[in-house]
Amino acid sequence: MPDLAYLNGDIMPIEKATVPIEDRGYQFGDGVYEYIASYAGRLFMLGAHLDRLERSMGGLDFPPIPRSRIKAAIVDLFERAGYDRAGIYIQITRGVAPRNHAFDPTLSPQVVMTIRQINALPENLHRDGITAITVRDIRWGRCDIKTIQLLANSLAKQKALSEGHSDAIFISDQNVVREGTSSNLFIVKGGQLITHPLTPNILPGITRMAIIDICRETDLKIDESFFTTDALYHADEVFLTGTVTEVMPVTQIDGRCIGDGNVGPLTRKLYDGLRQKALAGA
Amino acid sequence: MPDLAYLNGDIMPIEKATVPIEDRGYQFGDGVYEYIASYAGRLFMLGAHLDRLERSMGGLDFPPIPRSRIKAAIVDLFERAGYDRAGIYIQITRGVAPRNHAFDPTLSPQVVMTIRQINALPENLHRDGITAITVRDIRWGRCDIKTIQLLANSLAKQKALSEGHSDAIFISDQNVVREGTSSNLFIVKGGQLITHPLTPNILPGITRMAIIDICRETDLKIDESFFTTDALYHADEVFLTGTVTEVMPVTQIDGRCIGDGNVGPLTRKLYDGLRQKALAGA
Repeated sequence: MPDLAYLNGDIMPIEKATVPIEDRGYQFGDGVYEYIASYAGRLFMLGAHLDRLERSMGGLDFPPIPRSRIKAAIVDLFERAGYDRAGIYIQITRGVAPRNHAFDPTLSPQVVMTIRQINALPENLHRDGITAITVRDIRWGRCDIKTIQLLANSLAKQKALSEGHSDAIFISDQNVVREGTSSNLFIVKGGQLITHPLTPNILPGITRMAIIDICRETDLKIDESFFTTDALYHADEVFLTGTVTEVMPVTQIDGRCIGDGNVGPLTRKLYDGLRQKALAGA
Repeated sequence: MPDLAYLNGDIMPIEKATVPIEDRGYQFGDGVYEYIASYAGRLFMLGAHLDRLERSMGGLDFPPIPRSRIKAAIVDLFERAGYDRAGIYIQITRGVAPRNHAFDPTLSPQVVMTIRQINALPENLHRDGITAITVRDIRWGRCDIKTIQLLANSLAKQKALSEGHSDAIFISDQNVVREGTSSNLFIVKGGQLITHPLTPNILPGITRMAIIDICRETDLKIDESFFTTDALYHADEVFLTGTVTEVMPVTQIDGRCIGDGNVGPLTRKLYDGLRQKALAGA
């Protein structure tokens, strides 16, 4: 079965799907997105992704689209492709209009999706962990809205790769550790987890939420509070979370070993917990 | 003659021009742009716009495109449309590839342009000035690169319009006055001009440069330094500059009159100077 695109109601091969050059997504970054994964033929946390998509659209004052319509389109695309392990990308932009910073609030949002098979990340990444660098967080002030303005994320990721690492971690000008380029970040210190609280400066991650749920279910102590680069370097364990990333151990940052440089027990436990949740179709 | 689009070498009506959904401009805001105006059948400051376009592309590590090729395409489009007073929009994105934050540095940049007639701004705006509001500058940290990540600009402009004003002025968290949503900002105090210096937080405007040139040619004192909202409110004159804006007097900000609330003499002088330069084809 082929990879497919959805374009305002029509389904076609991805390379046939095009949008007008005056789509505001193309000229203003005026759009939002979600990425949903399936495990064993079931979409994981679809409801939470739809909640966030609605929240992102509301944050930019897009006219609402009935949730049932978006959900039906996602499920239809998923069933047509028939992949057990699928990644569905959904992008909604404000609409198409002659270029102008101001916009007509009654424009019709454009809905585009793609579906592809997810290639499992190399096994050794979850076993051995990855190395990362820190970069200055120069992103805009509304990272809580999942917009397509991802240039800073993209450039930071590319910088990490070009220096031989797997990802970059954003650090604020006040030295607060934010998150990865497409993932949230957790540290473990003295048996307790810490992650950045939900503010306009980080994405309210769905996997982040799932991990917090697992912590509560298993009586692991989790603290949503700010911490600095120093706390990051001196953590016992560090991991990233995201739909693609799942729970990814980070064993070295800026050339410094985290803990003893091996994947820690809580990271492993939470990775297993997330996989269980995902395979159970929670 | 119709409005036209240019799409990687082909010319067509604007509504026929489409790009693949996996153009990185559409999914990552990974693109740069310029907007060039003509006066009386001549493109104004084309060389300066091409300089900045090259600088923006370099800032994002795009592979270079020969300047002669871009220039020839602009001039060809301009001649085909045959408008005396044309606005040419040029957008270059990193290229098309399956969605991934990281990118292949050898991707082929995509070049898209549109040309339309410029409708002169209503006469009374330059005569009477506009009113504006201030907004917090939540844009990313590289506003010196003219990228298509314009959502904060767009939302700020829309906020101003919805409150009955013409534009918004970005103010940093440290209370520094940056610029307008698509223009630079100058204040006049005691016969002297002040504008934000060229840093990563503002756009190096072409019209800004032209105004500084006019100041130097006419022995007007101009200071490129930081100033606060307080200095803005208490300026004798305030104006915005840009390719579309030209020199736009701002006579009221956040409900406070600037100076005596009328367009000031230096604003008028610089507007006339810019128009002369433009009509002379400088």
